[in-house]
Amino acid sequence: MSLAEMVLNGDIRAAARLMRDIDDNRPQAVDNLKQLYPSTGNAYIIGITGPPGAGKSTLVDQLTAAFRKQGKRVGVVAIDPTSPFTGGAILGDRIRMNRHATDEGVFIRSLATRGALGGLSRSTSDVALVMDALGMEIIIIETVGVGQDEVDIVKAAHTTCVVMVPGLGDDIQAIKAGILEIGDIFVVNKADRDGADRTARELATMLEYRSAPEGSWNPRVLKTEAQRATGVDELVAEILLHREHLFSSGTINNFLRERNERHFVDILRDSLFKKALEFMVADGTLDSVVTGMGSRTVDPYSAAELVLARMMGER
Amino acid sequence: MSLAEMVLNGDIRAAARLMRDIDDNRPQAVDNLKQLYPSTGNAYIIGITGPPGAGKSTLVDQLTAAFRKQGKRVGVVAIDPTSPFTGGAILGDRIRMNRHATDEGVFIRSLATRGALGGLSRSTSDVALVMDALGMEIIIIETVGVGQDEVDIVKAAHTTCVVMVPGLGDDIQAIKAGILEIGDIFVVNKADRDGADRTARELATMLEYRSAPEGSWNPRVLKTEAQRATGVDELVAEILLHREHLFSSGTINNFLRERNERHFVDILRDSLFKKALEFMVADGTLDSVVTGMGSRTVDPYSAAELVLARMMGER
Repeated sequence: MSLAEMVLNGDIRAAARLMRDIDDNRPQAVDNLKQLYPSTGNAYIIGITGPPGAGKSTLVDQLTAAFRKQGKRVGVVAIDPTSPFTGGAILGDRIRMNRHATDEGVFIRSLATRGALGGLSRSTSDVALVMDALGMEIIIIETVGVGQDEVDIVKAAHTTCVVMVPGLGDDIQAIKAGILEIGDIFVVNKADRDGADRTARELATMLEYRSAPEGSWNPRVLKTEAQRATGVDELVAEILLHREHLFSSGTINNFLRERNERHFVDILRDSLFKKALEFMVADGTLDSVVTGMGSRTVDPYSAAELVLARMMGER
Repeated sequence: MSLAEMVLNGDIRAAARLMRDIDDNRPQAVDNLKQLYPSTGNAYIIGITGPPGAGKSTLVDQLTAAFRKQGKRVGVVAIDPTSPFTGGAILGDRIRMNRHATDEGVFIRSLATRGALGGLSRSTSDVALVMDALGMEIIIIETVGVGQDEVDIVKAAHTTCVVMVPGLGDDIQAIKAGILEIGDIFVVNKADRDGADRTARELATMLEYRSAPEGSWNPRVLKTEAQRATGVDELVAEILLHREHLFSSGTINNFLRERNERHFVDILRDSLFKKALEFMVADGTLDSVVTGMGSRTVDPYSAAELVLARMMGER
């Protein structure tokens, strides 16, 4: 039996193995993904993003518990800013999730931001696909919402929750703004802290400036204290409300088209580039271009055009 | 006269126009970059990165002033997390730089992180190239060091300064670690704040764990108060020391090869992808693949292989 068939039979260890193959860029991973693809598209994907320190991991943990209580199977893809130095600190967060470790209805997978050369949003989509095929009904994608990469990742989510926290500085304010546009729900976490109401009000005011066409979803600002699970049920209810709106308004069709296009285009970009690199390494082009750039006798723009032309058989 | 020739003659307005053409992805931008290329490679590039709120803009402002005092011409490329909402806050930072606005020896350019589809490190390289051709002897690239994208950008710098600030939370600590590896100099800014010494000590301790081959550069931790220009001369001295090491140790050769390879590969990836997109839009492939994915009758992995094969004339 192929890994794909085992995954479709609900084999969790096969799913973990396939995800490792995806990580390692093994060619057979693609064969398995092809096999899985027709059976996917059933999971509801929730994106959780926000600045560092907002308590996203704890919130994801609580959401997982809440959906489990409803009997849903839950997959979690956590994008970790890994580090050789303080990796421990981040692992600490993951360990908190361990209360779900013995629960077969929960599947947690961390993806590292480093080393995923330009392919992080693609790996996230691929991993989510495996969870979907495994029968996870809810998939939560958690990412630190600061870089463009991370923002792109949550675009794969049906519902995106932007998590804020009271009392972050001005600069954070600026970054925060960059993710305002992608939020379907805004959460002020650690709502017991000073300034929570102010942050919530400020967010609500900013959202009023969002220009949105008639009949489109109106994002609300909720308050939570993830540590004590306060406000989590309300958040779940709001997520379901947004889901309802997505389907009843027909927005879902556009959303899915855009998501599929992005996934396809990511894959194509990767494979084009891999092919070109093979070409250039095999015939020594890469080396001679780089050497020529060093002496300024070759410019990279003309060199790229030449490689492209040669690949396309134009000469 | 072409824009490139005007830039080589020191025409600042021509440089600004060429940068706009780069932003807008105009085909003639590439022609001009080709013309400029042979005359570049003279500028010394300094990268400034660190978490939001570390005071990077102020530090860049002070560095600019310090290099100007030495009679150097200075270019600044600032990567801004732009936003339609609080753009003002960020602009505020830029306005501070206005004390250099009437100085022909300073050229400042902001690049937006949004909308630069996968090409931010490429645009940064291209813009730096124009500044180089214009005769800027020092180019400072400022970026918020949180995403992988931003980390990739400062890899183009000869000397990278990682700017920290006392009293950031644990999560920031984790992200901070991700950029430890790329720092040649570490700066604890806002050193008048509580905890500055502790942060400096912690950084120094972390750096001891950095495994580095014999004879390689040993990053130090400096303290600054950019607002009052305290510690800025020391920082400049340390940058020059690192530059000295780069050349005397021969590390410069590897550095330049890697930088050139990255620049070339970025350009190639972009142009390959653009070509593929043209192909697919023209013959309706993109549309039919996306539709097929929606009904799960087409999988994106096989579709990418087909497009690739067709582009390469394999069928």
